[in-house]
Amino acid sequence: AERAAETESRMTNEERTNLTLGLMAMEFAGVKSPEGSIPGAGYVPGVPRLGVPALRETDASLGVTWIGGARGDGATALPSGTAQGSTWNPELIELGGQTIGAEARLKGFNVLLAGGINLMREPRNGRTFEYLGEDPWHSAILGAAAVKGIQSQNVISTMKHFAINPQETGRHFMNVKIDGASLRESDLLAFEIAIERAEPGALMCAYNRTNGPLSCGSKFLLTDVLRDDWGYKGFVMSDWGAVEALDFALAGLDQQSGAQLDEDLFFGEPLLEAASSDPRYRERLGEMVRNILHAIYAVGIGDAVPEKTDEEAPNGGEVALKVAQEGIVLLRNEGGALPLSPDIGSIAVIGGHADAGTPSGGGSSRVMGDDGPSIAIPFLRDGGSGFAALFDRMYHGSAPLDAIREMAKDARVTFRDGRYPSEAALAAAQADVAIVFATQYQTEGFDVPDLSLPGGQDALIAAVAAANPNTIVVLETGGPVVMPWLDDVAGVVEAWYAGARGGEAIADILFGKVNPSGHLPITFPASLDQLPRPQLDGAETVEPGFLGRGEPGQTLEADYTIEGSDIGYRWFARKGEAALFPFGHGLSYTSFEHGKLALAHGDDGITARFEMRNTGERTGADVAQLYLISGPEGPKQRLVGFAKQALEPGETAAVDLTLDPRLLGEWEEGGWHVASGEYRFALGHSAEALGAVQSLGLPEIRLDASGHPVVKN
Amino acid sequence: AERAAETESRMTNEERTNLTLGLMAMEFAGVKSPEGSIPGAGYVPGVPRLGVPALRETDASLGVTWIGGARGDGATALPSGTAQGSTWNPELIELGGQTIGAEARLKGFNVLLAGGINLMREPRNGRTFEYLGEDPWHSAILGAAAVKGIQSQNVISTMKHFAINPQETGRHFMNVKIDGASLRESDLLAFEIAIERAEPGALMCAYNRTNGPLSCGSKFLLTDVLRDDWGYKGFVMSDWGAVEALDFALAGLDQQSGAQLDEDLFFGEPLLEAASSDPRYRERLGEMVRNILHAIYAVGIGDAVPEKTDEEAPNGGEVALKVAQEGIVLLRNEGGALPLSPDIGSIAVIGGHADAGTPSGGGSSRVMGDDGPSIAIPFLRDGGSGFAALFDRMYHGSAPLDAIREMAKDARVTFRDGRYPSEAALAAAQADVAIVFATQYQTEGFDVPDLSLPGGQDALIAAVAAANPNTIVVLETGGPVVMPWLDDVAGVVEAWYAGARGGEAIADILFGKVNPSGHLPITFPASLDQLPRPQLDGAETVEPGFLGRGEPGQTLEADYTIEGSDIGYRWFARKGEAALFPFGHGLSYTSFEHGKLALAHGDDGITARFEMRNTGERTGADVAQLYLISGPEGPKQRLVGFAKQALEPGETAAVDLTLDPRLLGEWEEGGWHVASGEYRFALGHSAEALGAVQSLGLPEIRLDASGHPVVKN
Repeated sequence: AERAAETESRMTNEERTNLTLGLMAMEFAGVKSPEGSIPGAGYVPGVPRLGVPALRETDASLGVTWIGGARGDGATALPSGTAQGSTWNPELIELGGQTIGAEARLKGFNVLLAGGINLMREPRNGRTFEYLGEDPWHSAILGAAAVKGIQSQNVISTMKHFAINPQETGRHFMNVKIDGASLRESDLLAFEIAIERAEPGALMCAYNRTNGPLSCGSKFLLTDVLRDDWGYKGFVMSDWGAVEALDFALAGLDQQSGAQLDEDLFFGEPLLEAASSDPRYRERLGEMVRNILHAIYAVGIGDAVPEKTDEEAPNGGEVALKVAQEGIVLLRNEGGALPLSPDIGSIAVIGGHADAGTPSGGGSSRVMGDDGPSIAIPFLRDGGSGFAALFDRMYHGSAPLDAIREMAKDARVTFRDGRYPSEAALAAAQADVAIVFATQYQTEGFDVPDLSLPGGQDALIAAVAAANPNTIVVLETGGPVVMPWLDDVAGVVEAWYAGARGGEAIADILFGKVNPSGHLPITFPASLDQLPRPQLDGAETVEPGFLGRGEPGQTLEADYTIEGSDIGYRWFARKGEAALFPFGHGLSYTSFEHGKLALAHGDDGITARFEMRNTGERTGADVAQLYLISGPEGPKQRLVGFAKQALEPGETAAVDLTLDPRLLGEWEEGGWHVASGEYRFALGHSAEALGAVQSLGLPEIRLDASGHPVVKN
Repeated sequence: AERAAETESRMTNEERTNLTLGLMAMEFAGVKSPEGSIPGAGYVPGVPRLGVPALRETDASLGVTWIGGARGDGATALPSGTAQGSTWNPELIELGGQTIGAEARLKGFNVLLAGGINLMREPRNGRTFEYLGEDPWHSAILGAAAVKGIQSQNVISTMKHFAINPQETGRHFMNVKIDGASLRESDLLAFEIAIERAEPGALMCAYNRTNGPLSCGSKFLLTDVLRDDWGYKGFVMSDWGAVEALDFALAGLDQQSGAQLDEDLFFGEPLLEAASSDPRYRERLGEMVRNILHAIYAVGIGDAVPEKTDEEAPNGGEVALKVAQEGIVLLRNEGGALPLSPDIGSIAVIGGHADAGTPSGGGSSRVMGDDGPSIAIPFLRDGGSGFAALFDRMYHGSAPLDAIREMAKDARVTFRDGRYPSEAALAAAQADVAIVFATQYQTEGFDVPDLSLPGGQDALIAAVAAANPNTIVVLETGGPVVMPWLDDVAGVVEAWYAGARGGEAIADILFGKVNPSGHLPITFPASLDQLPRPQLDGAETVEPGFLGRGEPGQTLEADYTIEGSDIGYRWFARKGEAALFPFGHGLSYTSFEHGKLALAHGDDGITARFEMRNTGERTGADVAQLYLISGPEGPKQRLVGFAKQALEPGETAAVDLTLDPRLLGEWEEGGWHVASGEYRFALGHSAEALGAVQSLGLPEIRLDASGHPVVKN
């Protein structure tokens, strides 16, 4: 902080504003890419005479992004955020962060626009695949791990999109209406905990409005909460195209990004002029620059930009494979249908372009290897605004079909593309097992209109299952889907978007080379009727389009007071609904038991202790989940801790958890309040598969807005 | 013939064999493209010292083909063969042939591998879209017109694939079993009449076997029928990869094409050696060369190859548009749903990538404009053998959505891609009319497994129709499809693959700028059960793959004695089945009546005279179809003539037709036999919508194998 202030004090106002204005690092709208930039998301010139490096920014949470091949080299594609969230393994996610952080530096970048931790409040959100889950604690722990990993490589990471950014439909103008307490207890809590744990150099504010103002012009979010309550020291950059006025600077925005996408380069000349005439701007300009310098020094990105190479992190492929292996979730396995034997006689592989690869989600977060996509399937041309290369459906070249053939070398393995159910059923009837790959494509810019599998895949699966009861469905989806055929298939594997080596990872799980240990980070509803909003907000009024700017003057109100902070499994618990597959669900080829839960409240805070045990025949990893079930005022389900543990057959491990009181309490009158009384907890294999309930009496606890105990007078 | 013999006599045997050996005009299997070739299908070196030009060969019936962009320039893409067949307009098809023939020459080619006239015996055939129809007379008349047009530009055209080539599954080894009479009365009759009328310079023999031998090694087809019975003077070239032995030369094959695809360059060194030691080969070699020279001189391709430019025929786009306008078939129009008013308030356009263009069929026949495909959708990678660039799904850039917006300038026109029925239904419910574009992709190399619309499009249409009764379905299919939703939609337009300006043509029809006049050239069955073979031959035993060579030693027998010569509507008539839409069906925005049919038999042969009248309010064109209904031995439906006539409201035109006796008779004992007795005829608007029956008594008529009257002694 001192060094930041010292450097800032030696700058001219022009140098100061230069640091607050980020430009697209691509030729755009006739403006050339800035000198010194590398094709990527953005570029902010430095101040060489003061050793302040330029900021070379690249997307995103899954790796150094492809940007339509513009940079000329590829990068390690980690599995999707949903897959990462399914690992429930912070150490692995931190390793993933180290990998993509190292790669960002190798490729000449010092800022990675990663750390996507928006809670999955709307499962139809087209960016669900970029995020980690629906629970604030789970997302905070894993998101913090990713950012720590990245910043360990002297690369600034963002967290994003601050603070609530639930869907793509009308993304530039939709207004989220939510009460303050619910916001604190859900989306803001995830950011709060993640920021505490990882200290991201930057935060990226979101496109949408929350209770009125646009996120990047919200004094409530950017100043009241972020600075005053949380004491955040880094800088806030805008999302690309999210700035509408100069006075966003006064609200708390420190840097305008990709400014060509906005109506003006507000943080250029206009800011310079304002700072020379208006003391409020003069003061803010200094503060903005000190926030940016704080991140530069705290993360230690050096005094010059890293040199660009086209190298990847040497262990990138292995890390991507490991994340995929741990992120794949075995949802259903009837009669021991899985794992498959390598000696199986014949396999009918069907659908999902399994002969070509595994899907990548679309938009600015897309990562591709050096060879680019193995196939690219056109998405919308209408409403595409020229961004088709960003959001067309693309596949990583790791083909499950090849991996399956590799695994079952003597089997007769046939492939049908699945467009014709009759053809697929005929092949299935002729094989010992049918494996149907079913995909749901998600991309930034467009929500999925419902949770069905598009393009007739539900009918395909039904036809295949009718032809062969030994049917395994491998889902490659961005988020939850409904499964009308579920009772008719033997197995369901949720592989998400499985990344650079996804095909291998899927075959590893199918054949039991790897014992599945992924658990759902989001509730799979049985139908849309179970959601707080059965119809997607804006479905009837907003035309789909990548930019999502809508008609001139168009508005869209989203009422999030319905569920408030009860996202996902909390909503299901509140309504007494049973999910198709609950949050936290995931099967294994072995079995696990949890010992008795011991709870205590003392000098170490609120603690829980229990044992995890592998009671089956195979080595595997279990995820024990500790849920609050009720408080003094009644039922209230919340995940308050979890542990992932690899266990040999018969092995037992003891686990100690310390619970964050904010997870137990409510936001009241500017702080956290845990009412005195009895709190009931249970260990679970999922949010619905809960063990014995244990109670703990607690005194009243109060924390201030920054999460610190309020000392009673 | 004399000149051919004279030139041939001055050649060395090496020069002779050079003329009989065609090579791929692409680098292939490590062999460079031959010197002097242009990227295309094939190249045969000439004999410059004798003024014999090299043969530069390009595919195919729909224009000068794209070959994955290898040539660097595009060409005019005519609508598919099925669309051309739907015009029932020989003059227009001849103009189409002139256009693509002229273009072939402009692009440096002197041989166009056009003239695809295989009868649509198997509607699941992946190449249905390349052919003209299911009836021998209809295909012969239109096929001959196309070839005449091409050869008028001094470019040799083939006819193909001689003589029966009904499906792609197992195409290199399937054996068609059919009795001789049925073959003469169906597939061979189409070639016979077409050859008589157009004198194609070349014939291309097919891949498959017929009654045992491979087509290109069949003495029956290539010598007994073609030379001895028909007296054909041109040359027979093999299809690419269809030659398995040197002695195909003795069976009647004149030229080995794309020889790198075969196991040996049989017609190179091996033929040269055989000709120097074996008198049979020496004699055949001379004959082969004379046949080739005959075509060169008769078509007048000149003594040197044409210079290559990248120009297109100046009227190419207009001709493509006109063919599309006349080829689109209005199948259903309830309550005057069509034409649409340009003043309509709102339109929901759905599916079929209508925002990007119209589909092109796949394989060697694909034509693309200079800009290549507007979108390309990956097809199979498994089984693709590296030919994916040939058979991926590609679209011409003439987008129906744009054309519709152009036509209804003040309407609110929305687009949904149709992957999600719920989303499409919501848009449909909000619009005055919903237009669903539904596609069936066909490509060389792969049959369609059934006649459903793939990828869930039937469910999509059902959902849209349920949301808006004013739903129009635009089919863009290679051939027939079944329509489980038919009763629930207001209109159905069959647009086929509508070529370079297909989007415009579709909008012209939808809005009535053009009055539809296309009529089906193939029966649309209500279900597969109505076909002679409800299951596709080989569906259970042959793995899909572009090359279709199957497992070593694999065989596939197809029994075509079931229907014999009764293809399509003839089969339906024989079985008393009602089609979903019959052969010859096509609606108009006006109405037509036919006057009384007058039949006669005299010195002019068998003649028919009748009047056609426009009884409605709009100008339009009618297709009057004259069917034989029965002969002396009982019911027997056959198309024996047709006329297309443009008519003003109230206008009447008289039509005279002369009937070919071969269409009335049977093949018996080496010739044609028309039994004496009563023949009943009717004019029809389709094969099922027949007018009053008229009888004609005929004496016995006999024609020899060449179609000439047998003079009785």
